[in-house]
This record gives sequence, C-alpha cells and structure tokens, in this order.
Amino acid sequence: MNAPDLTSLVAFAHELADLARAETLPRFRRGVAVDIKEAAEWDPVTEADREAERVIRAHIEEHHPGHGIIGEEWGTVRENAPWRWVLDPVDGTRAFVCGTGTWTTLIALEHHGEPVVGVIDQAFSGERWVGTPEGATWTRGEETRALRVRTTTSVASARITSTDPVKKGFFEPAEAAAFDVLAQRARVGRWSLDAYGYGLLASGDLDLVVEASLQHYDYAALVPVVRGAGGLITGWKGEPVHASPRGRVVAAATKELHAEALETLRHVD
Amino acid sequence: MNAPDLTSLVAFAHELADLARAETLPRFRRGVAVDIKEAAEWDPVTEADREAERVIRAHIEEHHPGHGIIGEEWGTVRENAPWRWVLDPVDGTRAFVCGTGTWTTLIALEHHGEPVVGVIDQAFSGERWVGTPEGATWTRGEETRALRVRTTTSVASARITSTDPVKKGFFEPAEAAAFDVLAQRARVGRWSLDAYGYGLLASGDLDLVVEASLQHYDYAALVPVVRGAGGLITGWKGEPVHASPRGRVVAAATKELHAEALETLRHVD
Repeated sequence: MNAPDLTSLVAFAHELADLARAETLPRFRRGVAVDIKEAAEWDPVTEADREAERVIRAHIEEHHPGHGIIGEEWGTVRENAPWRWVLDPVDGTRAFVCGTGTWTTLIALEHHGEPVVGVIDQAFSGERWVGTPEGATWTRGEETRALRVRTTTSVASARITSTDPVKKGFFEPAEAAAFDVLAQRARVGRWSLDAYGYGLLASGDLDLVVEASLQHYDYAALVPVVRGAGGLITGWKGEPVHASPRGRVVAAATKELHAEALETLRHVD
Repeated sequence: MNAPDLTSLVAFAHELADLARAETLPRFRRGVAVDIKEAAEWDPVTEADREAERVIRAHIEEHHPGHGIIGEEWGTVRENAPWRWVLDPVDGTRAFVCGTGTWTTLIALEHHGEPVVGVIDQAFSGERWVGTPEGATWTRGEETRALRVRTTTSVASARITSTDPVKKGFFEPAEAAAFDVLAQRARVGRWSLDAYGYGLLASGDLDLVVEASLQHYDYAALVPVVRGAGGLITGWKGEPVHASPRGRVVAAATKELHAEALETLRHVD
C-alpha cells in the first residue's frame, strides 16, 4: 500500500462526501413543502440518490480519470482498474423517506478489489465515519474522535441491530429464524439503522450487526470502518463479505462475540 | 383556557427543555471515554435521567411553586393542582445507550388533567417539537416550521412505526399479533424511535404509530404535538389514551387511517 497516496485519497473521499451532502440534505424532509399535484411527480429520495452520485462521479472523472467506479445509480466504468470507487449515494432510502436521520452516503475506495478506505456520512446530523488501514475516526463539525469498538464478548450482553427484522422480505424465513435467536438472546436491540448501525458499532455504541441482502455498494464502505475500529466483518459462515451468498453480513465488536453469532448463523443454507 | 397564560407557559416549557439538554447531551455517547473499572460504577443514562429531571423540577418549584409535578424519576407532588407538569427526562433509554439520536426529553403541561402543552426535545440533533391547542411547531437552531400531518388514508400506503416489535416483552403476544397485521400491510416500516416517532408523525414524515406499555409520562407530551399537527391519538379501542389498558396508544395522520388501524387493534383484549 502506498501510504502517501492513501492520505491524499482519504482527503479526496472527504471532498466526495461533502459534494454528496449538498445534493442529499436539501431534499431531505421536503415532502410537506410540495403541493399535492407536484408531489405525485416528485420523488425526493430518487433525486437525491441520482444527483449525489452524479456529482461524485464527475469529481472522480475530473481528478482521477483512471479510477474505476461502481455506483448504485449509474453503473460501472473501468471495473478492472487497480483503484475503484464503490458508491451508494443514499443508503437507507426508507429512512430518508420516513424522516429519520440514519440514511447515509457510502463511499468506498478499493485497491485491487479490497476496500481500503470507507466513508459513512450522515448529512442531517453532520456525522462522518472514515475507516482506513490506519484506524477509524468519527467527525461532526469541529469534533473528531478516534474510534474503538466495545469489549463485549457474548451475545447475552450485546447491543444488536439489523435493518428490518419485522417486515417480511428483508430476511428469508430461515435467515429470520436464525436472526431471531440472536435478537431474543441479546441484551438490547435497536432496529432500522442501515449502514449507520455499522458506524455506531465502530463508535463503541453497538456490538453486533446482522443483515442479509446487502449489495457490493452497501457493504464496501463498511469494511474499513468496522476493521479500522478493531471490529470484525464477514459473511454468515465467516467468509469474506464479498463471497457471502445473498449478501449476508455479520459485524461484531470482538472475535468472541463474532464466533458466538456465527454458531447460530452459519447453519443457514 | 387562558391564552396569555399559555403563551408564557410555552416559553417556560422551552426553558425547561433547554435546562434538560445541558444535563443529557454531555452524558450521551460517553461510554468509551470511561475506563473499564469506572464503567461498572457509572450509568450515564440513569444519571442523565435523574439530573435532567432534578433541574427541571427545581425550575418549576422556583417559578411556579403552585404547579403539580409528575416525573418518571422523582415521583409526584401536588397531584391535584390545576396545572401539572408531566416529565420524562430521557424517553428511549435504550436509544440513549445504543448511541442513536432518537431518545427525547418529554415535557407536558396538563390543565385539569388534560395535556395542553407538549414538548418532544432531541438534544443531539437539536430538534424540538412543541404542541399546543393553537398548533404544532418544529424547531432546530434558527429554523422553525409549522407542522401538518400527511394526508394518508390507508394502512397500505402508510409509513408505520413502533418502538420494538422484535424483542419479546414490549408487546404481549396478542398485541404483537395484531400489530404484525398492520406492519405487514403497511407500505414502509421503521422501528425503535420511541417518542421521536410521534414527532415525525406530526412533521408529516410518518403516518401511524402503534405502541403499548406507555406510562403517563411517556404519552402526555405526545398528545398536544400530534393533535396540534392535525393528527389523532387514542387508545387501541378509540378511548382517550389515559383510559387505555396497558398504555396502548395509536396515533394516526388522518381519521380514515386511524379507523382502519382500530379495526385491527380494537379486538385485542
């Protein structure tokens, strides 16, 4: 890894997140400002998603025209470039629609397919998690903290999250059953956080995240943030997340907690 | 109702919420700053809860010594006074513990037992919902908005929330079964919002909140906020919330949506 390059690329990732904020935040919670006739035509979250990715891609094309880009909204270019950006301009579209400040902009930089920089940015609260091989930080305005996961070693004492264990469809039935074992055993559960939950894991607030149906652009940015704070992130059988069937992800604060969660999850076909 | 009095009392309620912020916010997300030995002794959310209520009560005693007070932490004084404050200094203690910015400070002013002023305050995001018989507002820093609920008339097109439909214990089994019917039918669901969800209903972001096990100090502040924005809030059989068995509350954006939700909920014994 070329350390000087990564430093400048982390600064560049911050620029990308700033550009995205300017497109997403003005469209958040604007439903009531739109009259009924117009509302039928207008979809603020789709517009935020598309416009944020558009400005991010334009900035990459201008400053790093040799880098690849994989984006949720506008597809893939230069897939085999050594450096590749993976983008989800609005992760948590349902959170965005419902007015909860937990949707995020996800920006990952991969080097030869391995995510080395991850950004989880929440524009409304002004929070930004950044992970690199050097560590993970959280910033909000002038405040910056170096991050470290909690020391929780058992599910029984863990704070668990998952985006939607209630509505059918997020988990398949076998996944839902395995997840429910963990949810009932865990000390505290909070739901509907999308990628923001992985940020809170890195911050030492939550201990365990268990999800499925995650796409490349959903998880790429999470990996450097969770690992940078000392946590683990894998598929449900312990495999690398990109090799997990159905995008099944488990992130944990400690290896003991991760191992106990896998005991329940790894038997799901 | 004496309108001039209420205006000054609303201003006083803002003072109370400001005082509470100074006690809650510095204790939020401070777990990692505490060393392991100290952590066992230290419970930030309990401390936030107690200290916030302590400063609120002291301010009421100083300026309105004839008013009654019902608080979650420090009990009841002058229960039969015509004006009575009902306080939950930290609603959503699990949110507080898990680092999500959706715990709130709830302050209600009741006149002869009827809540006439309600404040839902979120210190981390800086958001404050205030409801009175005149209407409801949302403020954040210099920004203020008058609130109006959405026009959603059916569960199928509704955005629904409830604090914990996953962990056993929040709902009794019959309650959980009835709730699940609504959750599966609704268009979008977001969970774990506590009183913040009623704020988002008033803001026109969510349409339907269904909960149980709410205490007097949990729901008193919600009533003026939801009604002030044009919404409905009752027990599961349509009765006043204070008359609901097991603190079962349903809040809805429109009377049609409320009626459809009651059709499912009213049969739970």
